[in-house]
Amino acid sequence: MKKVILASTSTLYNGDYLEYLLPTLLEHFSGCKTLLFIPYARPSGITHDDYTRKVSVAFAKINITVNGIHNYENPTEAIQKAEAIFTGGGNTFLLVSQLYKNNLMTVLKNTIEAGTPYLGTSAGSNIGGMTMNTTNDMPIVLPESFNTLGLIPFNLNPHFLDANLQSTHMGETRETRINEFHTISNIPVLGLREGSWLEVYGENITLKGDFFARLFKQNKPAIELKTNTNFSFLA
Amino acid sequence: MKKVILASTSTLYNGDYLEYLLPTLLEHFSGCKTLLFIPYARPSGITHDDYTRKVSVAFAKINITVNGIHNYENPTEAIQKAEAIFTGGGNTFLLVSQLYKNNLMTVLKNTIEAGTPYLGTSAGSNIGGMTMNTTNDMPIVLPESFNTLGLIPFNLNPHFLDANLQSTHMGETRETRINEFHTISNIPVLGLREGSWLEVYGENITLKGDFFARLFKQNKPAIELKTNTNFSFLA
Repeated sequence: MKKVILASTSTLYNGDYLEYLLPTLLEHFSGCKTLLFIPYARPSGITHDDYTRKVSVAFAKINITVNGIHNYENPTEAIQKAEAIFTGGGNTFLLVSQLYKNNLMTVLKNTIEAGTPYLGTSAGSNIGGMTMNTTNDMPIVLPESFNTLGLIPFNLNPHFLDANLQSTHMGETRETRINEFHTISNIPVLGLREGSWLEVYGENITLKGDFFARLFKQNKPAIELKTNTNFSFLA
Repeated sequence: MKKVILASTSTLYNGDYLEYLLPTLLEHFSGCKTLLFIPYARPSGITHDDYTRKVSVAFAKINITVNGIHNYENPTEAIQKAEAIFTGGGNTFLLVSQLYKNNLMTVLKNTIEAGTPYLGTSAGSNIGGMTMNTTNDMPIVLPESFNTLGLIPFNLNPHFLDANLQSTHMGETRETRINEFHTISNIPVLGLREGSWLEVYGENITLKGDFFARLFKQNKPAIELKTNTNFSFLA
């Protein structure tokens, strides 16, 4: 059974890395002693090694040993044999570009669909959607495709931000940007606020955390959906 | 002689479309009775026709008639024969994708380099840089390349926003995003605040407007540069 968590962010304001998710992860990864980490998104340009060390510190708290995929000679096999998989946040363009370059997109999808428990945060959640078209990141590299894992039948917008009505800045709001996407695509987009995550267990896709999420569909007004909403209706 | 204006934004808070730039444009486009408008970036998904009408209203104030490139059977010829060219803001991915689809990137570059006066705002300024890697826009479509006009020997980040030190949001700041770009590219990036523009006359690239601009170079601390700075030193 598919067992996936896609979180808006790894870290809450004033919190430690992954801290708010640890009780959930203890259950999600129960029975797993090791976890394969995919550090390709390199937040702030951090190295794969440094990023993996940071993740190891967090997972040590729930007694899971972390191995970075960049240390394997055969990353395809590393994914296939992993007990658990985590893709961290950073730059989605870099992450997707590296997954394609290493021919890992399909094997990662198939492995997760077959039941290897998966965690994504931020960019690592973005790739859980159908495409990466609704990332917030800067296009620092051109990936060969924007198609991603499709673990859910819609797209995500992590770190979703409501418009600041006091702002005098004339750049587009997040909502304007998502509406622009819907002028050329009919894939629904779920805006996940920081502190929210999706639990995907088999066919059930459930909103967790304390916040409402905002659902955008083509040619429909956006709606707010509360914690424990089951998103299977989007399938 | 190359004659280019690249503006951070088309519109200031509480201002009308292009209003703050009109005195500058009157001089920049002096002698021109008509202007070719490239509406491909479609802000908020507006149609090419509606966007062209909006631009026509602004340019009527300085007695210039606007024609949208989408109305020409041969857009290449339309660019080559234009008295003046303006590319408006919106989504940079859509703009660049359409320029490549219509085989217009090279002819547009050559025509501007040969002296046809050009104006870009926001996405239309982004394409004046070497690449579109430092746009703020959402990747709603995948262009065949991120390479753009290279009218200046560096990249732009329009609508540049300083970090809000009071914010509890954990998404990346603009500065973090640009620094991520510099982990994989050595192209300098100029953050242009709303109300600033670059004047490119021949080999002189000059900062105009009331604000400092922020220059990011690989492996160097960012620096603030004042109005009338000449950026030819980046060539």
